[in-house]
Amino acid sequence: MNIPLTPLRFLHYAERQYPNRTAVVCQGKRFSYEQMGKRVGQLAAALKAAGVQPGDRVAFLGVNTHRLLEAYYGVLEAKAVLLPLNIRLSATELCYIINDAGASFLFIEENFIPLVDSFRNGLKTVKRFCQLGGEPRADWLDAKNYDGFISEAEPHRLNIDTVNEDDVAEIFYTSGTSAQPKGVMLSHRNIYLHAMHVCMALGVENSSVELHTIPLFHANGWGVAHFLTALGGKHVMVPAFDPKVVFQLIQDEKANHFSVVPIMATVLVNHPDRKNYDLSSVKRIILGGAAASPTLVREVQEAFGCECFAGYGLTETSPTLSVSRMKPELDWEGEKKYAGEAMAGFAIPGVEFAIVDAEDKELPQDGVAFGEIVARGDGVMKGYWNQPQATADVMRGGWFHTGDMASIDKDGYVQIVDRKKDIIVSGGENISSLEVEKVMLSHPAVLEVAVIPVAHARWGEVPKALVVLKPSAEASEASLIEHTRGLLSHYKCPHSVVFVEALPKTGTGKVLKKDLRKQYAEHVPDATAVVRA
Amino acid sequence: MNIPLTPLRFLHYAERQYPNRTAVVCQGKRFSYEQMGKRVGQLAAALKAAGVQPGDRVAFLGVNTHRLLEAYYGVLEAKAVLLPLNIRLSATELCYIINDAGASFLFIEENFIPLVDSFRNGLKTVKRFCQLGGEPRADWLDAKNYDGFISEAEPHRLNIDTVNEDDVAEIFYTSGTSAQPKGVMLSHRNIYLHAMHVCMALGVENSSVELHTIPLFHANGWGVAHFLTALGGKHVMVPAFDPKVVFQLIQDEKANHFSVVPIMATVLVNHPDRKNYDLSSVKRIILGGAAASPTLVREVQEAFGCECFAGYGLTETSPTLSVSRMKPELDWEGEKKYAGEAMAGFAIPGVEFAIVDAEDKELPQDGVAFGEIVARGDGVMKGYWNQPQATADVMRGGWFHTGDMASIDKDGYVQIVDRKKDIIVSGGENISSLEVEKVMLSHPAVLEVAVIPVAHARWGEVPKALVVLKPSAEASEASLIEHTRGLLSHYKCPHSVVFVEALPKTGTGKVLKKDLRKQYAEHVPDATAVVRA
Repeated sequence: MNIPLTPLRFLHYAERQYPNRTAVVCQGKRFSYEQMGKRVGQLAAALKAAGVQPGDRVAFLGVNTHRLLEAYYGVLEAKAVLLPLNIRLSATELCYIINDAGASFLFIEENFIPLVDSFRNGLKTVKRFCQLGGEPRADWLDAKNYDGFISEAEPHRLNIDTVNEDDVAEIFYTSGTSAQPKGVMLSHRNIYLHAMHVCMALGVENSSVELHTIPLFHANGWGVAHFLTALGGKHVMVPAFDPKVVFQLIQDEKANHFSVVPIMATVLVNHPDRKNYDLSSVKRIILGGAAASPTLVREVQEAFGCECFAGYGLTETSPTLSVSRMKPELDWEGEKKYAGEAMAGFAIPGVEFAIVDAEDKELPQDGVAFGEIVARGDGVMKGYWNQPQATADVMRGGWFHTGDMASIDKDGYVQIVDRKKDIIVSGGENISSLEVEKVMLSHPAVLEVAVIPVAHARWGEVPKALVVLKPSAEASEASLIEHTRGLLSHYKCPHSVVFVEALPKTGTGKVLKKDLRKQYAEHVPDATAVVRA
Repeated sequence: MNIPLTPLRFLHYAERQYPNRTAVVCQGKRFSYEQMGKRVGQLAAALKAAGVQPGDRVAFLGVNTHRLLEAYYGVLEAKAVLLPLNIRLSATELCYIINDAGASFLFIEENFIPLVDSFRNGLKTVKRFCQLGGEPRADWLDAKNYDGFISEAEPHRLNIDTVNEDDVAEIFYTSGTSAQPKGVMLSHRNIYLHAMHVCMALGVENSSVELHTIPLFHANGWGVAHFLTALGGKHVMVPAFDPKVVFQLIQDEKANHFSVVPIMATVLVNHPDRKNYDLSSVKRIILGGAAASPTLVREVQEAFGCECFAGYGLTETSPTLSVSRMKPELDWEGEKKYAGEAMAGFAIPGVEFAIVDAEDKELPQDGVAFGEIVARGDGVMKGYWNQPQATADVMRGGWFHTGDMASIDKDGYVQIVDRKKDIIVSGGENISSLEVEKVMLSHPAVLEVAVIPVAHARWGEVPKALVVLKPSAEASEASLIEHTRGLLSHYKCPHSVVFVEALPKTGTGKVLKKDLRKQYAEHVPDATAVVRA
């Protein structure tokens, strides 16, 4: 018997097995799985009544709310495709993405109405705009908001057997650190199997409580949403990251797990009010989205008295490819343990890695050789939306090419060396900007840092560091460079340091090195040097 | 990216991620995952060199050994189909099954050589016979035993992308649903998804240690083998159930989990030597294969100081459909808890249950209504081997019909009320009363017969025959039992015969076995034994 693999089954299962459990907690509201299932069915019915056809893209622009979580199921239940939009994108980017995806329906949170209005005339495919919460505040919006839209519908439940598991279920746009954002198509099967494999890797327990600290429109955030439902877990929505809100929700809802990007972890660890809350329910914190430092891993473990390790994945891989839990047979202790747990980790079940050279020739997994890391796994996307050539390029040879440079050691642990395009080539040597950044972060005064290549007459490129200091901390350029020279080969050390107030970031919190490279290119003494695009 | 779902991926993953972990412990021998992977590859290569073609059936007749575990992967790696045979079957039954499946290759454990020899002339398709361990002791056997057969081969590893996930991977014969055994075809996808769903339901941890107390040729036994490999667990083989061997292996290997049929659990609980062993590593014991009693659940929990609950499944369902872990939101305590944990339990993720009446109309899940329990799930077989009509019958309406009568309560817990066909479960083996009746009817003096289960202190249930003799014919109890022993496996033969004037029947002439079971329940020697309702 083959039953289509679709995340809708997770919700149907939870509704049957755990109807009275709290499914979602969102700004004071609580819905049981029975209630959530009903709302999901109503959303599906309302979309169908509004003319949404199978395969249509339905876009959501909003923070983490129970409505976005409902859309994760309700849009699929209508056989449509969910398109969650990143609220931190610019009007230009949002307009581009909505048009590129050809969304026909756009749900918008109240706060973003003016933003959407600013590019509304540029939208070519959207037929209806519906406000998510509050009274609709513009005449181009539906007269009823989301709750009104769904309230009168009789719940529609899909016959699972009519789903084609290879159909696209969700489209997420990549953050576009390098080029025009691309739509990543995830199939029902991608999502189902990814959820199960992550669950196996993490040993997630029935009725866990997860704090959705990462936006659900985000690679790092949505992966959890599905398996948690299958296990009848409680989704605790964090609309916007605020340390005190996070602490309060952990205490109130007895949260067991959450994921954060390193800078969020740093904020939580250093927050003066942390000790005023009971955070003893937390069992596991995963660091993702950017390279984590061993120091941070240790600080999180000490601050929360729980498991903490890094993970690795991409939008194109649903996202999780690896987590850095220590294998019981390893003898990591102390600093070695923290360093290991800060690595990208080893492949979760269902995932296979290789590292390849520029000609896609496989390199040894000896912890020394490094090349582009390529992956196979059930969570690897179906392809890029409307970009068959880009899809073929990145999937060449049956492997998904991540664009990250890495080594893999004999124990299977991946060490990301750098983004392929962020490698600094100095005097013929490759320098990992990530490695230099980690060393700079070990300086007590440094809060954030980005190391970029700048052209140099003699060496081709040399590293330059852009540093954000911790509040009221002080450090000189010379002292920071001296710090790195004590810990790194000298050719890897920054030739210059610039102190900045903040680093430019994508909506997903990744530093926009592309922008920094452009900005600081003008300060290069040798104008003939090539600046990397 | 779609990667075929096949259990071979579990082994490939374990080889890469956990090469040095102990994969299997078997009668003093130990193999790491690297070593096991090599042996599996050698078995595949040797089978291919011996002419085994994709889809060929390769049969194994033996107890739990590392070789049978290797076959779970090596036969599939050769793209052949594994056919594990039940060592408790009679020569006639084994001969029938091997011919029905059309096996071309038969591996035989030393002890079973004389048995196979006794029906060898009746085998129509087997081309080669290979002894599993020891020196080959007959001229019709390959000159080399299993180890010799594989030893010189260069390991063959399958390109996973060439697997069709819907191809048959394993065939197990069921004796449960009719007189003639049927071959249950499990696809690569069935096995892969079943393993993952069970893993989710049980929250199995990485590097767990499982004691294979149940034969791997058995529904209850093979389910565990696959997900344990994916998590790099240690397979501890128990060749034959012996309480002191079980205790010793738990202590020596620090076993965490095992499954037993109720009679085995009773033996372990009551064994006088139990307290001489350190059994503190055991975390979970699952009771399956026959109805468990609340008393037994309590006794196991007390004796081992660990989790113990029942489960439910069939050969046709890979096997697990449900487990009876308590949902955290329930308020079971004391006797209520033991009673709950002795139920068939609630559907594991991926499984859906309904109960239907004789016209397949769905009945309410209110804990009162009972009907045949039907199931949907990814582990439900592809079908019966060469029996499209029987397959269509049992799969009608898109649901697998279990043949068990049950109720389902509002919390989703299944209570098996009775078996639709009057299966007798003796020492964990299914006995078809119909089959025994047929054999008895072949005795010249027998007019009518009904075979029913009666409780037995050691075997759980044993068959009892109620016989109406032909007018003026004569036969003794002993002679009738002797008649069956010449034609059936001994465990299937009635332990007692009662001569009656007539059998109670329904209006349509069907024997009312339910009435007979009630009537003869009082004649059970051990008054504490549970009699099936």
